[in-house]
Amino acid sequence: MDDRVRNYTVSIHYDRRLYRQDIAGSIVHVRMLAKQGIIEEDDCQRIVSGLESVCAEIENGSFPWDEGLEDIHMNVESRLAQLIGVETAGRMHTGRSRNDQIALDLRMFVKDAITDTLAGLVRVQGALLELAESHRDTLMPGYTHLQRAQPVLLAHHLLAYFQMLERDKSRFADCRRRTDVLPLGSGALAGVPYPTDREFLARELGFSAISENSMDAVSDRDFIVEYQSAASICMMHLSRFAEELALWTTQEFGFVRLAPDYVTGSSIMPQKRNPDFAELARGKTGRVYGHLVAVLTTMKGLPMTYNRDLQEDKEGLFDTVDTLLATLDVFTGMVSTLEVDVESMGRASSGDHMLATDLADYLVTEQGVPFREAHGVVSRLCDYATANKKGLDELTMAELRTFSPHFGEDVKEITARSSAEARNVYGGTAPAQVRDALERAKGVLAVDPPPNPPPDQGEGE
Amino acid sequence: MDDRVRNYTVSIHYDRRLYRQDIAGSIVHVRMLAKQGIIEEDDCQRIVSGLESVCAEIENGSFPWDEGLEDIHMNVESRLAQLIGVETAGRMHTGRSRNDQIALDLRMFVKDAITDTLAGLVRVQGALLELAESHRDTLMPGYTHLQRAQPVLLAHHLLAYFQMLERDKSRFADCRRRTDVLPLGSGALAGVPYPTDREFLARELGFSAISENSMDAVSDRDFIVEYQSAASICMMHLSRFAEELALWTTQEFGFVRLAPDYVTGSSIMPQKRNPDFAELARGKTGRVYGHLVAVLTTMKGLPMTYNRDLQEDKEGLFDTVDTLLATLDVFTGMVSTLEVDVESMGRASSGDHMLATDLADYLVTEQGVPFREAHGVVSRLCDYATANKKGLDELTMAELRTFSPHFGEDVKEITARSSAEARNVYGGTAPAQVRDALERAKGVLAVDPPPNPPPDQGEGE
Amino acid sequence: MDDRVRNYTVSIHYDRRLYRQDIAGSIVHVRMLAKQGIIEEDDCQRIVSGLESVCAEIENGSFPWDEGLEDIHMNVESRLAQLIGVETAGRMHTGRSRNDQIALDLRMFVKDAITDTLAGLVRVQGALLELAESHRDTLMPGYTHLQRAQPVLLAHHLLAYFQMLERDKSRFADCRRRTDVLPLGSGALAGVPYPTDREFLARELGFSAISENSMDAVSDRDFIVEYQSAASICMMHLSRFAEELALWTTQEFGFVRLAPDYVTGSSIMPQKRNPDFAELARGKTGRVYGHLVAVLTTMKGLPMTYNRDLQEDKEGLFDTVDTLLATLDVFTGMVSTLEVDVESMGRASSGDHMLATDLADYLVTEQGVPFREAHGVVSRLCDYATANKKGLDELTMAELRTFSPHFGEDVKEITARSSAEARNVYGGTAPAQVRDALERAKGVLAVDPPPNPPPDQGEGE
Amino acid sequence: MDDRVRNYTVSIHYDRRLYRQDIAGSIVHVRMLAKQGIIEEDDCQRIVSGLESVCAEIENGSFPWDEGLEDIHMNVESRLAQLIGVETAGRMHTGRSRNDQIALDLRMFVKDAITDTLAGLVRVQGALLELAESHRDTLMPGYTHLQRAQPVLLAHHLLAYFQMLERDKSRFADCRRRTDVLPLGSGALAGVPYPTDREFLARELGFSAISENSMDAVSDRDFIVEYQSAASICMMHLSRFAEELALWTTQEFGFVRLAPDYVTGSSIMPQKRNPDFAELARGKTGRVYGHLVAVLTTMKGLPMTYNRDLQEDKEGLFDTVDTLLATLDVFTGMVSTLEVDVESMGRASSGDHMLATDLADYLVTEQGVPFREAHGVVSRLCDYATANKKGLDELTMAELRTFSPHFGEDVKEITARSSAEARNVYGGTAPAQVRDALERAKGVLAVDPPPNPPPDQGEGE
Repeated sequence: MDDRVRNYTVSIHYDRRLYRQDIAGSIVHVRMLAKQGIIEEDDCQRIVSGLESVCAEIENGSFPWDEGLEDIHMNVESRLAQLIGVETAGRMHTGRSRNDQIALDLRMFVKDAITDTLAGLVRVQGALLELAESHRDTLMPGYTHLQRAQPVLLAHHLLAYFQMLERDKSRFADCRRRTDVLPLGSGALAGVPYPTDREFLARELGFSAISENSMDAVSDRDFIVEYQSAASICMMHLSRFAEELALWTTQEFGFVRLAPDYVTGSSIMPQKRNPDFAELARGKTGRVYGHLVAVLTTMKGLPMTYNRDLQEDKEGLFDTVDTLLATLDVFTGMVSTLEVDVESMGRASSGDHMLATDLADYLVTEQGVPFREAHGVVSRLCDYATANKKGLDELTMAELRTFSPHFGEDVKEITARSSAEARNVYGGTAPAQVRDALERAKGVLAVDPPPNPPPDQGEGE
Repeated sequence: MDDRVRNYTVSIHYDRRLYRQDIAGSIVHVRMLAKQGIIEEDDCQRIVSGLESVCAEIENGSFPWDEGLEDIHMNVESRLAQLIGVETAGRMHTGRSRNDQIALDLRMFVKDAITDTLAGLVRVQGALLELAESHRDTLMPGYTHLQRAQPVLLAHHLLAYFQMLERDKSRFADCRRRTDVLPLGSGALAGVPYPTDREFLARELGFSAISENSMDAVSDRDFIVEYQSAASICMMHLSRFAEELALWTTQEFGFVRLAPDYVTGSSIMPQKRNPDFAELARGKTGRVYGHLVAVLTTMKGLPMTYNRDLQEDKEGLFDTVDTLLATLDVFTGMVSTLEVDVESMGRASSGDHMLATDLADYLVTEQGVPFREAHGVVSRLCDYATANKKGLDELTMAELRTFSPHFGEDVKEITARSSAEARNVYGGTAPAQVRDALERAKGVLAVDPPPNPPPDQGEGE
Repeated sequence: MDDRVRNYTVSIHYDRRLYRQDIAGSIVHVRMLAKQGIIEEDDCQRIVSGLESVCAEIENGSFPWDEGLEDIHMNVESRLAQLIGVETAGRMHTGRSRNDQIALDLRMFVKDAITDTLAGLVRVQGALLELAESHRDTLMPGYTHLQRAQPVLLAHHLLAYFQMLERDKSRFADCRRRTDVLPLGSGALAGVPYPTDREFLARELGFSAISENSMDAVSDRDFIVEYQSAASICMMHLSRFAEELALWTTQEFGFVRLAPDYVTGSSIMPQKRNPDFAELARGKTGRVYGHLVAVLTTMKGLPMTYNRDLQEDKEGLFDTVDTLLATLDVFTGMVSTLEVDVESMGRASSGDHMLATDLADYLVTEQGVPFREAHGVVSRLCDYATANKKGLDELTMAELRTFSPHFGEDVKEITARSSAEARNVYGGTAPAQVRDALERAKGVLAVDPPPNPPPDQGEGE
Repeated sequence: MDDRVRNYTVSIHYDRRLYRQDIAGSIVHVRMLAKQGIIEEDDCQRIVSGLESVCAEIENGSFPWDEGLEDIHMNVESRLAQLIGVETAGRMHTGRSRNDQIALDLRMFVKDAITDTLAGLVRVQGALLELAESHRDTLMPGYTHLQRAQPVLLAHHLLAYFQMLERDKSRFADCRRRTDVLPLGSGALAGVPYPTDREFLARELGFSAISENSMDAVSDRDFIVEYQSAASICMMHLSRFAEELALWTTQEFGFVRLAPDYVTGSSIMPQKRNPDFAELARGKTGRVYGHLVAVLTTMKGLPMTYNRDLQEDKEGLFDTVDTLLATLDVFTGMVSTLEVDVESMGRASSGDHMLATDLADYLVTEQGVPFREAHGVVSRLCDYATANKKGLDELTMAELRTFSPHFGEDVKEITARSSAEARNVYGGTAPAQVRDALERAKGVLAVDPPPNPPPDQGEGE
């Protein structure tokens, strides 16, 4: 049997990451066993103290990992047996099977991951809000079909992403609710033949509920699929923002400059400032989608209950969590150090034919011209301006009046700013509305305050 | 320009399905315009009554659909213009754009689809519960790795699926909460330059909230992705059940018989009773996953705000809804007409070495043998029984005692039933626990009562 | 049993599209049966003539489609029985089952689809080549990371897509080779108990080979997955081109104008010329990827041989073929009518710091300055120019010499054109190389000539 | 800048795997530079010998990997500079950029991976053929819809998988043809301004062709997508086989026993022999599909030419290769050690109503009964037998004649074996046909002989 075959079932190289959850679960489990009189109090204390030593060894790097022992459970148990003797160590497994144990570890992991994810999302929101605050008055072109459409405030544009992330938070929070269910006590599949106290386990391990059905509990991985689905939607949002940053930093758009930490040069082309972080964020959307497809595929058509296929649930999950958390941090950094070329954005907001809609609106509202007629007038104006390579704002009154006698001098008062101001509806881009929206956003973050810098180790690495 | 190119942008063959939402939205919109003095009350009434005629024409089949008009909005508007005159009809669009209009239609559609989906889920749960009730005492083998593991109650097995569907309901309900946000008033992207009353629109159209940001509102399709994600998880559950039905109806398992409506014969092989409905349900999991991938791919990397790529959001959604609703009805039918071979299940529950764990438990609990020794004894017993082609229950006391003197006559009292009874923990398979679980399940459905037969038309076809 | 359930197994609304393949296969099959003496020659003639009538009815729209008969096979057979009597019609199925029949139909369909796909690819290549020919001298900026990198010829850029499509053709041709295998004669799964002549069937139906294993033949759908995989890669290429067209038509880039047939306006914004066709092409990449995922998912884990899950193989395939063929036609149209703004491209090719690499190369090659020193000099030059808002080509000799005394007057001879000319390597952008590449591309299309306008009906609609 | 952000662009932890390709490419590149007089012969020799030292250091584990240097190129170059001086080391990059360098490394890697993949496929085919050879006469039930359909030979069933793998080989070989194209010389995107000799590079590096277009060459990743697509189809095949092994090892089927190396026990349930390797193979199908989706997603909509998103092409590819190679080895092992329960398969082949089709055929062929009548007779027979819990072969002549007077004593000669023998068509299950098929399969493997045990290191780990 060659190595490739032998290693086929080994998972210790990635599931060691669950050591903290695995040991915490075991400690509470044996405390419960002792409380219920299933094992001796004395054995309980020796196991708990042995597990604490194991945990310390792992964290200080002295733990003797053994690939031959396949997974985290066996590594921990085997080391425990070395430390406290095989007989006492063996009592740890009373009333438990691998199947409910790994389900427990994974649920604890996902709950922790969601805590970190929410914190990461809040940090990006904080950065967006801060940048938006300092650009309450900055105008830029709003786009549809990547064609300039109507002027908007940069703050308004940034708050669109704030809203997307707010929905992401809501999805992860919902996922946490469904993850927050204790599976321990389900045994291999049918429940355990011991007088366990599942309520105690749940309370001590911080779960809000206990699972209703043992067969479901050992084979359910919905919470993993759901995390990955929420992460896919979130990465989709970030891919859109990454695309915009890549566009905005082109020579053609020239709207923003990324901080030096977030661009890379070229060893050949001295002029290059490539937005590599944004590109990688966009590219990594692929891997997160891929992991979602992977777990859905793996789960398809599996009969009840536990099947070894389920071992495939972990690597994709871990990579999804790592990718998402890192990407969120990258955006926090990119946004909070972004340099906006206010002038360039402003120029683009009034240039070309951005105000065509407003000219038509002028004819309708101020002069009583029917909209269809007004629309036709401005269409012809646009064609004329294009042919003469002028912006609409560069046309003289004489030129304008060639197309309609209804143009008065006050048409020259139409600006990108007046255009934005007119969109004075809840959720619209009028400065007054955006100011209110910024206040509401601050309120959201106040309830859910931006946490301190990210924990130095992520969730359980 | 050939037909293929000309039809490339046409969507009327599928988006006509949104006519009900589109017209309802327009009616409330013009009522709001009149209330706010943006259009005349008189025009409002003519538009409303014209739209009601359009709706009636569509429903009685006399509506003159026109591919040349591309989409549902244009078809409705154009017909309205024929009915009430182009000038009045043209006023309907004041303060609205296609971008917020289609976002409205889709959100209304998804809310309706979720209502139908929840009803479909409740019906399957009802069928599961009814079958489980009538099999409170039916034993069957519980499987891990598709190998017989420990005896369980059929009712317990069925309730595992009840729990999966309960989580599905919870996910769809969460999705509805995020869908239930009015986008109208966002205009093309920046809000509208009219004194609209968005609260009125929300109230009249049955929305609980209004969107916070116009740019987000016209480009957000999260609610579609989320519906498809929840549908994918639900189809994954159903694919597992389908797989089990396909297994249980084999000659080898022989656990259940599907009703004649849910099997098909063969024109060649006279003996065939193929579980085609279950197979199709399993196969259709692919299309639902595929639609999820499609919409995630389409959304990836799109810059703000509306891009025509978004037109691709509909067909996959519609097919997902149709597929899921039909599949749920198929399961309701298959489960409520399923014939269980109680005897065959029972035989399989005690046969082979299903009770090996219980024999080991007997030595430990009753005779004080250390578990590791007990496990070894029973392993050797299993080997012996296999070699002699016997079940463990077929071994004589003499044979048993060859392996351990600790086997007493009472070991013969161990049965599949006693094994199940021993798993007497919350969520376990002990009959007492399952009885409680059935009561809780009834409670769930009582709160959320099984609705009447499915609406004859689905959501908006 | 409600309609949703009853219709669950019905496929006639989409598999009717296979009528031509189905009838052609049946005709050759009964001719073989007669030749082998399995049926009477007389019956054969009546069946063939009946099938020809059925085909004519379908094509002239008079065929009485019946949903109750579920699929294309049953519809055809049932109608045949009406036309020639049930007894004779019944002889058509001797030595055949649905399983090898549908496998035959699908292989014939895919072979036809590949013929159309190759023709569509050649047409796009033809349009690319024609445009490239007329822009042998047009310079444009080449991009990496969407940042301007080095000047290239537009013809060179277009030929990059020519190459991608050439690989696509090669993949589809390989797929056709594996599709071109006759499955008929495999029966339900085990072969048929009649003295059939499979070689005759293959020859008459235009297949190059016959299947080796009956169990494989009735359950193999590789050729469908492979078509969809090749289509996904092709759509990926087209999505890249679509992205570039969307970029190039922005006000910011301003490199090209799409013909009026390929843009759409806005009912609100008079200035809009949105690249909807390009956006839809990019968006439709999602549905094609989705169909690939769907069929892979459906096939996963199916036991031998035919399972009803396989019915799900068709709709995704049909939609993939339709989407790809239409998208290819859209690109043929967009490319052949594209208007290039040569001046705008040219301006962008020399502006900014596009020639920085060439300046460094100058110092190295002409003046013997070590590359690392040269790179440093030009980096500082770029910073200086940026700070002073100048292009490198706008710097005076005095300014240049402030950074290095090695700059001679001849440095002013460096232009975008000279930069391109320097890349004089096989596959490079030097005009001489591009000229050769254009000749080679013409050679490719000469071997594989652009067919006439697309068949008016596509493959079998 | 925290670690998560800093590490975002780092790839050395996975792309170090390309060291062999990277160094081999560099050696040939500098040899070409010297040959063309672009660098001095002396420098060339120092670089080559330095690179050889670097390679040796990596292989003996003494290489000082540095995360700060981000990728394999930088690590190698930096170490080279330490070994031979920065000036000479710097000359290695003349006429090359990272963009064509990484494209070269990846193509070399994929070519090597395909060689290993083909060898792995041939080994599984060899194991299948050997098992089939030793079961030329073993009958088993052939299934459709997982219902027993008609008797087949086990050898025939196994050869169905042989055929699937034969197509897989063909797909990988086609992929290799398209991968076998040298990109070096394309520079950053536009070609290089040096008199390189690309033909020399191709010849020395073992490439059959050189790339046609530099912009395409640096941004093309089709060969990766195509490998992953072929791998997905192959894993789909293996997932089907895995599913069958999981079924066949159930207590219910009982057709085969997996060797002890390919099952795992349970620490709780002494009787368990779980088919974990087969389950993992089935489960890992998900990750391979997922990687395909990931790379397709990443590539979607990228503008020309190189974008940093492309860095995401590697991890999924590497994992796909590793997973596929390991899975192939697992199947080689499982198949070559599989123990078939010939008796159990035989019993299932004639039991139940497997021979119903043959009874109907008997009435038609031997007695001239019309098929439709014969089918009806046997249908009623099946119902009768089911009601009386008998197999068709257990019915007495008297019972048979109650249903049709046409049954003669010779009907009792119909057996599973005679049924199989009747399918005597090319590709059918008749023993004579299967014998021929085995010979043809041997011929296939003779041309492409099963290589020795897998290389101990795979391609470049």
